[in-house]
Amino acid sequence: MEVNIIDGNFICDRYRKLLRRNFGKDVGDKLELHPVEVGYLLLKGIVTLKDGDKTISFAEFIEKFSEKEGFLPYFFVYCDLRDRGRKAAPVENYIVANNIYLPVSERKKVFLKDLNEFFDEHGAFILAVVDEESEITYYRVYKPKMAGKTKGIDKKIEGYFAGDRVLTDDLEIFSRFFFGSEKDGMVALSILESLYMIEEGILTLNLSLNEFRAKAEAIESNFLERYEVYRDLREKGLVVKTGFKFGADFRVYEEIEDVSQLPHSKYLVSIVSNDGLNLQDISRAVRLAHSVRKKMVFTFKDGGWTYLCLERVKV
Amino acid sequence: MEVNIIDGNFICDRYRKLLRRNFGKDVGDKLELHPVEVGYLLLKGIVTLKDGDKTISFAEFIEKFSEKEGFLPYFFVYCDLRDRGRKAAPVENYIVANNIYLPVSERKKVFLKDLNEFFDEHGAFILAVVDEESEITYYRVYKPKMAGKTKGIDKKIEGYFAGDRVLTDDLEIFSRFFFGSEKDGMVALSILESLYMIEEGILTLNLSLNEFRAKAEAIESNFLERYEVYRDLREKGLVVKTGFKFGADFRVYEEIEDVSQLPHSKYLVSIVSNDGLNLQDISRAVRLAHSVRKKMVFTFKDGGWTYLCLERVKV
Repeated sequence: MEVNIIDGNFICDRYRKLLRRNFGKDVGDKLELHPVEVGYLLLKGIVTLKDGDKTISFAEFIEKFSEKEGFLPYFFVYCDLRDRGRKAAPVENYIVANNIYLPVSERKKVFLKDLNEFFDEHGAFILAVVDEESEITYYRVYKPKMAGKTKGIDKKIEGYFAGDRVLTDDLEIFSRFFFGSEKDGMVALSILESLYMIEEGILTLNLSLNEFRAKAEAIESNFLERYEVYRDLREKGLVVKTGFKFGADFRVYEEIEDVSQLPHSKYLVSIVSNDGLNLQDISRAVRLAHSVRKKMVFTFKDGGWTYLCLERVKV
Repeated sequence: MEVNIIDGNFICDRYRKLLRRNFGKDVGDKLELHPVEVGYLLLKGIVTLKDGDKTISFAEFIEKFSEKEGFLPYFFVYCDLRDRGRKAAPVENYIVANNIYLPVSERKKVFLKDLNEFFDEHGAFILAVVDEESEITYYRVYKPKMAGKTKGIDKKIEGYFAGDRVLTDDLEIFSRFFFGSEKDGMVALSILESLYMIEEGILTLNLSLNEFRAKAEAIESNFLERYEVYRDLREKGLVVKTGFKFGADFRVYEEIEDVSQLPHSKYLVSIVSNDGLNLQDISRAVRLAHSVRKKMVFTFKDGGWTYLCLERVKV
């Protein structure tokens, strides 16, 4: 089968083999092929490519097209989907097959805002990341529910500020409500937990609210931002604890009945700045979350806080 | 048992119970206690603390001392070690028990240079990280061997530059030497691999060395740094591949006999800038490496490249 370059486009006859496998789009009584389709068909030895009388080899074709920003990752993902038997169709910057696939090179930064916009337009989709050795990792991107069933806290406690946390001898605040951590008859509350409890009228301190706030901001440079997310998740009825051991900002439980029978937390949540995220960091975070059977959620500020879950999938 | 504050120091009699458990140091016929020892003994109700006639409670004590930078993480680690039955002794900024422990708050940045200097002075030690909810994670810090047995590459190949990688149809360079990745009778080499192979006289390209270098630097902002580490590891006889799927710069094999029977890689290597590293990132990286049975190695430039392994341990 022969493909001809005509006015810079790739044109061929309406070969049944190509039509059956969903290659090309109709232009009059001919087919026009997308460059990645041409690359794939050349690679597989299915077509020959002619520019006038001259035959263009796969190597020559790729060398020329790979100069175009983003072509190569796009091409690798397209080939991989085709090799998996998907009748993939290239559309703008994405590929439609059994899902919508958005190819990206691992060297690019990713902006959650962009992923979110793509999600709003297309629904759940799959981010296809091509690494420097041309291996592809697929991540499903979607909006998690983020809703819990935590009961209101019906008690009042006293505590005292100590350095960078708050100590109290009220053990029930830990055992019934899972605030802080307990040791030796003493519960240590984080500054996030403490501010929340002060604002909710649960905790009284040896400091005023404003004094405490000032101290908290001095302790942690991004305290206010983390507190916003902490509060947002709490208001969704979730139980929020530090995610430090998992390298995330928070780990999140949907419901806790009793601390002595703690369920596994469901989500890890990391706050992402609007400067974007390296795909290497996404890879590490999602893989770690998976290895501990949690879902990795990234959140960014967009008026309110928007949550996106990235989950590694096989396609 | 009574401890008295005298000239700002904590002084008590040479109580046998304290001596037997390695508390305090001799000052004449008395014992002088370190503040964390006083805190611990107060918390456990073993001593009472007197400032003249006034009794100081644990809460009052902690409130005052926790103002001192770093006191609280240090105190939490000390208590944890004591609770594990270790006769821990506070020394400067670290604690000596069955190992040497260096306490740090998860909010601090860590500089590999500092850890390396501490290692050079004390040998392998344990970094004790106290998170915002006062939980402690222990990491053993040591220098890994980083030596492999890779055979020299005894062949020459040709390739062509395509966008951000190099393609070749020499399959043996993949199957025998594990360079690049193979698909459809084509091997894609990363720019790191390519530069190494050009410099070693293995690969000839459709570009000069300088042209290739310029392209590589344009593709990846930190290409030269990554290449230095890549080459350094190769020169140690190791096989080096991308660590993207694990969120690291490289994964490293000690020896590869045959690609069809690929062993598990032994190390993950991440390059750390001299700006320091968040403990959250360390936590995530080490935990992920552990979950895939690899060792997490951080490297930083210090004249040459220095490698430090951090491994989560139980103490």
